[in-house]
Amino acid sequence: MKTTRQEDNPVPLAKPEIVLDTSAWRHYHVLDLDDFTAEEIELVFRLADIMKKVMSHEMEKLTTLKDKTVVNLFYESSTRTRVSFEAAAINLSATVVNITASASSVTKGESLLDTFTTLEALGADIVVMRHSQSGAPYTLARYVKANILNGGDGRHAHPTQGLLDLYTMQLHKGNLKGLKAVILGDILHGRVARSNIWGMTKMGMQVTLCGPPTLMPIGIGNQGDAFPNVKVEFDIDAALDGADIVMVLRLQRERQQGGLLPSIRDYVQLYQLTEQRLARAKPDALVMHPGPMNEGIEISPAVAHGPQAVIDEQVTNGVAVRMALLYLLGRSEK
Amino acid sequence: MKTTRQEDNPVPLAKPEIVLDTSAWRHYHVLDLDDFTAEEIELVFRLADIMKKVMSHEMEKLTTLKDKTVVNLFYESSTRTRVSFEAAAINLSATVVNITASASSVTKGESLLDTFTTLEALGADIVVMRHSQSGAPYTLARYVKANILNGGDGRHAHPTQGLLDLYTMQLHKGNLKGLKAVILGDILHGRVARSNIWGMTKMGMQVTLCGPPTLMPIGIGNQGDAFPNVKVEFDIDAALDGADIVMVLRLQRERQQGGLLPSIRDYVQLYQLTEQRLARAKPDALVMHPGPMNEGIEISPAVAHGPQAVIDEQVTNGVAVRMALLYLLGRSEK
Amino acid sequence: MKTTRQEDNPVPLAKPEIVLDTSAWRHYHVLDLDDFTAEEIELVFRLADIMKKVMSHEMEKLTTLKDKTVVNLFYESSTRTRVSFEAAAINLSATVVNITASASSVTKGESLLDTFTTLEALGADIVVMRHSQSGAPYTLARYVKANILNGGDGRHAHPTQGLLDLYTMQLHKGNLKGLKAVILGDILHGRVARSNIWGMTKMGMQVTLCGPPTLMPIGIGNQGDAFPNVKVEFDIDAALDGADIVMVLRLQRERQQGGLLPSIRDYVQLYQLTEQRLARAKPDALVMHPGPMNEGIEISPAVAHGPQAVIDEQVTNGVAVRMALLYLLGRSEK
Repeated sequence: MKTTRQEDNPVPLAKPEIVLDTSAWRHYHVLDLDDFTAEEIELVFRLADIMKKVMSHEMEKLTTLKDKTVVNLFYESSTRTRVSFEAAAINLSATVVNITASASSVTKGESLLDTFTTLEALGADIVVMRHSQSGAPYTLARYVKANILNGGDGRHAHPTQGLLDLYTMQLHKGNLKGLKAVILGDILHGRVARSNIWGMTKMGMQVTLCGPPTLMPIGIGNQGDAFPNVKVEFDIDAALDGADIVMVLRLQRERQQGGLLPSIRDYVQLYQLTEQRLARAKPDALVMHPGPMNEGIEISPAVAHGPQAVIDEQVTNGVAVRMALLYLLGRSEK
Repeated sequence: MKTTRQEDNPVPLAKPEIVLDTSAWRHYHVLDLDDFTAEEIELVFRLADIMKKVMSHEMEKLTTLKDKTVVNLFYESSTRTRVSFEAAAINLSATVVNITASASSVTKGESLLDTFTTLEALGADIVVMRHSQSGAPYTLARYVKANILNGGDGRHAHPTQGLLDLYTMQLHKGNLKGLKAVILGDILHGRVARSNIWGMTKMGMQVTLCGPPTLMPIGIGNQGDAFPNVKVEFDIDAALDGADIVMVLRLQRERQQGGLLPSIRDYVQLYQLTEQRLARAKPDALVMHPGPMNEGIEISPAVAHGPQAVIDEQVTNGVAVRMALLYLLGRSEK
Repeated sequence: MKTTRQEDNPVPLAKPEIVLDTSAWRHYHVLDLDDFTAEEIELVFRLADIMKKVMSHEMEKLTTLKDKTVVNLFYESSTRTRVSFEAAAINLSATVVNITASASSVTKGESLLDTFTTLEALGADIVVMRHSQSGAPYTLARYVKANILNGGDGRHAHPTQGLLDLYTMQLHKGNLKGLKAVILGDILHGRVARSNIWGMTKMGMQVTLCGPPTLMPIGIGNQGDAFPNVKVEFDIDAALDGADIVMVLRLQRERQQGGLLPSIRDYVQLYQLTEQRLARAKPDALVMHPGPMNEGIEISPAVAHGPQAVIDEQVTNGVAVRMALLYLLGRSEK
């Protein structure tokens, strides 16, 4: 009779041992990528490499945050992002507390601060905050002691998305310097686009923004603005020409109420990423999307599930990058 | 002055040590009981015996799933079942992530798959899924790498309920072979009935289905069908005669909109399990109910709280059986 | 190149070691403070002192409840209180399961008991219960084996709030005996007031209740009632005269539908705690509030954020006191 013991573990897991120079890290909060250096971004990549080993069970869970409490404070509901941060924090042995606040039940200013002071009193060490108002995490960072990690604020920034996108590109392309990226779609309402622009230009990439003029922010891509490596191109075929990276944004139909778009049908005809259009990019160009996709609107199903798409990988890399950031914040000193 | 230290533990807990031949186990997913062997069911019973010791604090929590993530993906709300699976996973040291998705916010087909691919990318090792559509867990099992544990799908199956029912019977009756079980009530809409029929017949029990003709599925209990040991009896007194097990199903009033039932009052008069009716069963017959009960409808309060009822025990055994299944799935290889 | 290891921990945490005489503790449940002795309250204070060291990371998390399951059963939504109990339980290494039941989906009596029997079967060792009906935790304590910790029931009691208030006073004032406290506002609907009255009088404090006659319960403060040290004073200036503690209650506007209050404006004029009124109390008087505050209604912003306010501290102390109570309940024998 064969006996099995639960302690049996045919392949013993590698002991988590992180030997890495983290002295490049300068942040106490992660609010956007505008103040990141290329060295910090590279450090996040190297840590994320290690974190992926924990996720694939090649390495034991880390105990870095075992005496820390991570609060997921979500004023906008997003199961995907919340679960990604929750998984990341748990993999570092943190205590996780989820707070889902409906923005409607909260009056502005004082109450936001009030909620937060309370959370800090409860012992939050790191707070992941998502809020529909641009700048909300900055307000909090000014008043509290906990590390703040911006999980997306209004139209403003989504730094963890930017970093996971850069990390995914780096895994496939090696060096990012000089790569040509096209960001396609609703740039105006897009916090994903904004954080990517900061990150991509920091890493020496060339960025082309492409979308309908009504969905393009004023003042970007002009002669002499803050981003010499960013240009705007309204014609999708011209934009895609020779691209290494094609990042498609979600068309947020719920935000199209100001008459910015004549019709979805027009959008599909002019800006959907199809196989035919993708053929203008380099043959090994990556297709990326922050999710969730509107298949058949901003991206065709064939492209979304085609060989160049790395969309599922972005999700996996998201957990690794968030683990890297939580690891760094959990060790940072004010 | 007496001093107390928190480390003091007058009775040291037994070290968790499971010495059991698990080679009978063949499943990578648990979707229904139709493909279970009697040996597998017996193995679940023996593991559940051990799991009850963990639950009663005679044994320390197991660490079997300490590097695994269990996702509770509930498209139908059920606090009871969700908490049961959550407690089971935690007792095995798993990381648990709860996702409550409202079925209404989800469009069919693609989106179900989309959600799931995302969850897998987030590192789910085992997914417990409850869904209002029959077959949903099968669809997922076809596409993903994680182990799927069906937590109830539409009218189709509820295998963990079937196993916990069988386990409860076995604890009281010893050998199940030859026992006579009556399943009473709404068989047509009942996933609990379906999974029990598979399990009971696998274990050599005789099954009588009893309920109004309009709530009885067509094609069961007929001459020459797939279940020679299952018969249909519309008269409750005849059905209960000499029974060892009386399993009462919940009358799901929310599902009675197709005019299948003339009135609740008629149902009570013809099919409620009363003390008088129960007297026709064997004196030591067990009364079971998957909960939550409509007392005064399908079961009288006197029977529901009488000496033959094992309804609370079913709930406790449910955690033990779910621990056993998670233990087995957490060690299974594709 | 500097190398950093994640195991590096410059200041090793103190090993949790609790050497404290807990023999004064007599409770199996914590339902209200009416049956607490001064010795038990002092014991909670001393344990809370230790728990604060765990919260500030001077001490490692305790493992007292590592094989216990704490269920947060909330029939009234309160993120703040729920998170406070959740953090407390996690700091003692308990498994925490959150159940948020909407009172509306629950019919009275039987169903309350039914839910609870289920939870017990699932292995709940300690249940924290909040319910809108006064007395609900008592009903449960009569039927179940788990320890019950009242997290607030109707208008009746909120013992953990009472204890955290007393603990906060004790930290600032040392000895509580003989201190003069004023409780200001809606006494009638206030479970916070009720639990504080029990606790304060147990500790030998003098209590003055102050508020509009319509918000004052009948039969308290009269000659010869159960509380010789409690008096009622309708005039706020007279009440505050020489006070050591000023506890302001939340004006629960949602409970003012019976015409008990002529208008909010009148209330503000007659009973708001302003700087001018506070000047009548002792110069080192503490200003307390159970939160959330209606600033500008029962308390002026200047007072709420002034030097005498200890309102944030109350929140922090709440986690410590709840840890102390969970610690004691987790070790109590029936």
